[in-house]
Amino acid sequence: MQRIEAHASCGGVQEVWQHDASVLGCAMRFGIYLPPQSRERACPVLYWLSGLTCTEQNFITKANAQRYAAEHGIVVVAPDTSPRGDAVADAEGYDLGKGAGFYVDATQAPWAAHYRMHDYVANELPALVEARFPVTAARAISGHSMGGHGALVLALRHPGRYRSVSAFSPIVAPSQVPWGEKAFAAYLGTNRAAWRNWDACALVATAAERLPLLVDQGEADEFLATQLRPELLEEACRAAAHPLQLRRHAGYDHSYYFIASFIGEHMAHHSRALV
Amino acid sequence: MQRIEAHASCGGVQEVWQHDASVLGCAMRFGIYLPPQSRERACPVLYWLSGLTCTEQNFITKANAQRYAAEHGIVVVAPDTSPRGDAVADAEGYDLGKGAGFYVDATQAPWAAHYRMHDYVANELPALVEARFPVTAARAISGHSMGGHGALVLALRHPGRYRSVSAFSPIVAPSQVPWGEKAFAAYLGTNRAAWRNWDACALVATAAERLPLLVDQGEADEFLATQLRPELLEEACRAAAHPLQLRRHAGYDHSYYFIASFIGEHMAHHSRALV
Repeated sequence: MQRIEAHASCGGVQEVWQHDASVLGCAMRFGIYLPPQSRERACPVLYWLSGLTCTEQNFITKANAQRYAAEHGIVVVAPDTSPRGDAVADAEGYDLGKGAGFYVDATQAPWAAHYRMHDYVANELPALVEARFPVTAARAISGHSMGGHGALVLALRHPGRYRSVSAFSPIVAPSQVPWGEKAFAAYLGTNRAAWRNWDACALVATAAERLPLLVDQGEADEFLATQLRPELLEEACRAAAHPLQLRRHAGYDHSYYFIASFIGEHMAHHSRALV
Repeated sequence: MQRIEAHASCGGVQEVWQHDASVLGCAMRFGIYLPPQSRERACPVLYWLSGLTCTEQNFITKANAQRYAAEHGIVVVAPDTSPRGDAVADAEGYDLGKGAGFYVDATQAPWAAHYRMHDYVANELPALVEARFPVTAARAISGHSMGGHGALVLALRHPGRYRSVSAFSPIVAPSQVPWGEKAFAAYLGTNRAAWRNWDACALVATAAERLPLLVDQGEADEFLATQLRPELLEEACRAAAHPLQLRRHAGYDHSYYFIASFIGEHMAHHSRALV
């Protein structure tokens, strides 16, 4: 494991590490923000999952989560969005292959060899973080767009693993929208029954734990009606009596300007559960 | 004048505009953040000057100044760092030509035709902003590295034009460091007497106005000893009895992580003078 970057930030340190990810079969990078409190004591961890086309860099350079992580004493871990390297399968579009792992464990060739981002984020990455950094076992998870989908699915599939969950502009029903249909058909095959385990709207119906979902969505988001469709999550949560706080924000789009505007409120949400 | 981008941000709007800059003879882009207060009344303006290699994008996507601009009701204008386009002279290195205008008015061929960033920032840009946006004539100026040099020089050369000035990691004595010597020799010629008008340390000696300088400098900045040399500004201000608050921050480097960590304090500094 090798440290690639280290920058003082808001009294703590923003680092980037590279390691050989065994479940992915490739070298992976992740950002980790260590707040000032982590010099004195172990801190809880928020995992952040980024969206299509992103690497570990987007969130750590643009969201300004460090300020709130320093305020609350929360470590923030931001992995890359897919396996990487010359040996890893890829596709032409931005929405399949590298930069588009969709936080699933692929079962179809040529993807199954490396595309196991769910296993990586759920298991290998936290094990590594908890072994090598000054953190407690208290975990929260959040993300944006494809990463918002990832955060909701991870939390719904692993009762008790995360104390809180939130998402910005998530793909709440990948089985029903073009981004998800393309990715799931490639990674999981065309049998849609296999997709239910990777779809937040489907998982809500059978969730063993009633972990409240906090979702922020911009009403000027260019992907709102075609890819995100938060009303489907509203319906699924209503039908299952699953607690959901869906906040719609007039004027906000799909960019990091939206995330940076509300990340402080998400950090406060997670802090109430974690600290 | 054409609006290229508009994103809701922290209750206001982050926009990017393109216009034909007459003093530069090319199309130029600038970012402008309009805080929520600007919907109701004219607001004062902070001009932000970025460093080497930057465009108008770096500050608006990475510094998170919008949060504080919204808090204080300040418009923030962030221009590009040099003239642009196929007709504009360029050089191989990152530290001369495009992305490296150094906020001077060039007198030497082939630069003199377009490289007039001082005139642009001091005159054309504020005239445009004050004619077209809901702003008052109250102005402040700040910047980073090459842009910190620009901010200090602009404020020192134009008494009464800015109510406050600050800088992150500025090149305080370009006449005495490699970045400045290379750029000034190219843009201004080899007669060093002509450089004095573009060097904060030289200008402090004869400044007509005692506008206090706020400067933040990271002690782990990789350019500290060779290019930035804040001790030269300390000496110049002491000799001239010019008010200077130079804050050295252990562990911080030259990156936007440093700026994002302290931009809130700079915005508060400017707010006290502007609002």
